[in-house]
Amino acid sequence: MSSHYVDDSLMLHTDLYQINMAQTYWNDKKHNKQAVFELYFRHLPFGNGYGVFAGLEKIIHYLENFRFTESDISYLREELGYEEDFLEYLTSLRFTGTLRSMQEGELVFGNEPIMRVEAPLGVAQLIETALLNIVNYQTLIATKAARIKEVIRDSVAMEFGTRRAHEMDAAIWGTRAAYIAGFSSTSNVRAGKLFGIPVSGTHAHSLVQAYRDEYRAFHEYASSHKDCVFLVDTYDTLKSGVPNAIKVAKELGDKINFIGVRLDSGDLAYLSKETRKMLDEAGFTKTKIIASNDLDEYTIINLQSQGAKIDVWGIGTKLITAFEQAALGAVYKLVSIEDEKGNMADTIKISGNPEKVTTPGLKRVYRIVNSINNHAEGDYIAMEDENPQEEDHLKMFHPVHTYISKFVTNFTARELHKVIFQEGRLVYELPSLNEVRSFLQENLVQLWPEYRRSLNPEEYPVDLSQKCWDNKMARIEEIRKKVADL
Amino acid sequence: MSSHYVDDSLMLHTDLYQINMAQTYWNDKKHNKQAVFELYFRHLPFGNGYGVFAGLEKIIHYLENFRFTESDISYLREELGYEEDFLEYLTSLRFTGTLRSMQEGELVFGNEPIMRVEAPLGVAQLIETALLNIVNYQTLIATKAARIKEVIRDSVAMEFGTRRAHEMDAAIWGTRAAYIAGFSSTSNVRAGKLFGIPVSGTHAHSLVQAYRDEYRAFHEYASSHKDCVFLVDTYDTLKSGVPNAIKVAKELGDKINFIGVRLDSGDLAYLSKETRKMLDEAGFTKTKIIASNDLDEYTIINLQSQGAKIDVWGIGTKLITAFEQAALGAVYKLVSIEDEKGNMADTIKISGNPEKVTTPGLKRVYRIVNSINNHAEGDYIAMEDENPQEEDHLKMFHPVHTYISKFVTNFTARELHKVIFQEGRLVYELPSLNEVRSFLQENLVQLWPEYRRSLNPEEYPVDLSQKCWDNKMARIEEIRKKVADL
Repeated sequence: MSSHYVDDSLMLHTDLYQINMAQTYWNDKKHNKQAVFELYFRHLPFGNGYGVFAGLEKIIHYLENFRFTESDISYLREELGYEEDFLEYLTSLRFTGTLRSMQEGELVFGNEPIMRVEAPLGVAQLIETALLNIVNYQTLIATKAARIKEVIRDSVAMEFGTRRAHEMDAAIWGTRAAYIAGFSSTSNVRAGKLFGIPVSGTHAHSLVQAYRDEYRAFHEYASSHKDCVFLVDTYDTLKSGVPNAIKVAKELGDKINFIGVRLDSGDLAYLSKETRKMLDEAGFTKTKIIASNDLDEYTIINLQSQGAKIDVWGIGTKLITAFEQAALGAVYKLVSIEDEKGNMADTIKISGNPEKVTTPGLKRVYRIVNSINNHAEGDYIAMEDENPQEEDHLKMFHPVHTYISKFVTNFTARELHKVIFQEGRLVYELPSLNEVRSFLQENLVQLWPEYRRSLNPEEYPVDLSQKCWDNKMARIEEIRKKVADL
Repeated sequence: MSSHYVDDSLMLHTDLYQINMAQTYWNDKKHNKQAVFELYFRHLPFGNGYGVFAGLEKIIHYLENFRFTESDISYLREELGYEEDFLEYLTSLRFTGTLRSMQEGELVFGNEPIMRVEAPLGVAQLIETALLNIVNYQTLIATKAARIKEVIRDSVAMEFGTRRAHEMDAAIWGTRAAYIAGFSSTSNVRAGKLFGIPVSGTHAHSLVQAYRDEYRAFHEYASSHKDCVFLVDTYDTLKSGVPNAIKVAKELGDKINFIGVRLDSGDLAYLSKETRKMLDEAGFTKTKIIASNDLDEYTIINLQSQGAKIDVWGIGTKLITAFEQAALGAVYKLVSIEDEKGNMADTIKISGNPEKVTTPGLKRVYRIVNSINNHAEGDYIAMEDENPQEEDHLKMFHPVHTYISKFVTNFTARELHKVIFQEGRLVYELPSLNEVRSFLQENLVQLWPEYRRSLNPEEYPVDLSQKCWDNKMARIEEIRKKVADL
């Protein structure tokens, strides 16, 4: 490292303006006013019909360790010149707020709060950057992985993008997100160690090069590993790789499990079909064909449509970087703030762009599930004191095109937020990663196929309650009047 | 974390196949054979005319700490079932190799070795994944940042993409890469703490929302900060934001430095011109206009061409994720291996795709700089025992289209690699980050403008020596013959 401060904390993993605002609030004795922020994104990535939320486990870890270290404070004092009494305030800070959040593996859509933070203004502000950094990436990758999993259905998908990931955290948290979304394994051994994800991998071209003889390389690999997948494209897939793999497998017989061959270049449709023939003719009908090489849902659909004989998909770059659209734009917006008199007041951010106008007030989000067919009719955002379950005929209307509406009867309204921290105390029991994985699958079953299509899915309804909509309109009017009066 | 193993090491931040190959080599007593790997990418990202290398500092740190921890070994034993004697071998491993590398801030082009690793085969294999993970991301972002810096020239660029970065490591190492490439500051305070990068930032929309009154929010901010930049688009930029900023600045007079206003939405060309007029008319001719909102080199060129009055550029998502092309494809290829008799033998990887054929043998890379005009004529890859400086007339020819050639006289051949580790010992003195930054600027001066254009630059020559080319052709022939004989 270039500086003498140790990297012993994530507290400064925030934007400077958060600290500057905290200073203004502290200076004005406003830092302990209760504030309510919501975290949400506006648009689903990749044109997908749904998102998959991931990131909560790391956020819990971050908030549990929310305390400035001595090195943090030294840096703020020595390099940035903050004053001593403000630094004392920072030193005293813990996460004392209440966090309500969707659970990992939950389906999430645009413009609905994924998380709601109620905390003293200074604290709520300081955590914004880290929360967004974590949710934006992990949710992006979980969503991309779910998209890929939709097209490969029950086939096996392996994640092995570490070398192309955006530095090290992305590699391990990205592969965890992929596992949540149904991937079977990771190549990253550290992710296996930390998260208990199954790890997989065989050998690289360099093994063949190191022996300068493909047959010998396969033979030596097979002598040291019972389960064998041979990479067959170092020299020539059909003329050299597959014949050498078959030769070694025949020679070693029961001493090894000839699990598969991996194709990593060339025309995967053609090569997989030819390879399948060669394996079958040699009697290895159960040996699988694993394919890789810049695959994503688009190339996979194309290969499938050409009848490629691929059993297992290895996915790297296009997943771990979300190459198609490498960022999710979740934001964190103040929706309510304690005023001078101690009352909560709703707040709004206006914009010339209608979709950037925030929805003020404390809200809850419900999934409206049709009791007859167990399918979701849409999500419903209501004010804190409303309960859609009490309605016999629930009116749902589009929050922009308000003339689009429907009435729903015979439904269950499932609240999507769980209380994670209650006034600073962790009250949520973290599920295991396999439970998170199952939870996603349960959720997906409730989604009509129209929303699961990878290309041009239907738009899933995320509607505001009448009260929520009226409140938003009233706040917009207030601000308009104020600006006009300037 | 979901498992009971602590995250106390980066040794398992590798693909499983590296460990499996190490096991094969160890089993076959080949693990200590000397191996030479080269790290390079094939194509420059973004269609740029040059790349900027970054990642060495972190790699040095990684190699210095190259030792499996107890928790690593426990995981490998308990969960993956590796045998005890192989685990003992792993436990004993240190990085005992020689690493030659370009320095951070060096200009780099396709198909030239950025790094060369000479190490025992097992060790050289195990470090591949981490090296690629680090170089691919950091070099990608340094290159993107340099591209953006080319279009904004001497204007100031601030990096503030943390919330959209791919998890936490990307945020801090990405902003360091941007600083190397000429960005002036980061919003990420942790990056400031760790790397000594200047940090910058003022306030968010939430400050205005928290006061529910823009004028009061600006006033309170100004009461707690001498240097003021006001974010003016929470309600209405021209009708409310800029007038309130001017009002507060006039009221507080010399008590504050009215450094700037920040525009974060709307039409930045129109708004910046109107804002400039309003500021000038109020006498704040030195107050700067800072713009942000999904900017990259393309939007910046467009805004410049419309005469936007923007002094400072805030760059987030499009830089920190390299959104336009979110992955660099650097690879790590075996070029030479010690054979059974203890002699070094060159190795090659063949492919149907000519650009994927590797260039075998121990090589060095030189920048050929014209002594008369101090401009680079191209890079020259030669075999270890060649020295282009000894040539009077150096023949340079295109490594694919070999008929394209030129003779260069009156030149300096600067070797681009430094020895970083010599048989495991760190012998390189790390420059400061500001020295790295200056080094890049010195390098850029040597590059003709034709290679620095952001759109359709000329292709910079990266040529092989005749000997290097002949050696490659001979190895290809060998393999072809071998495959044909199968």
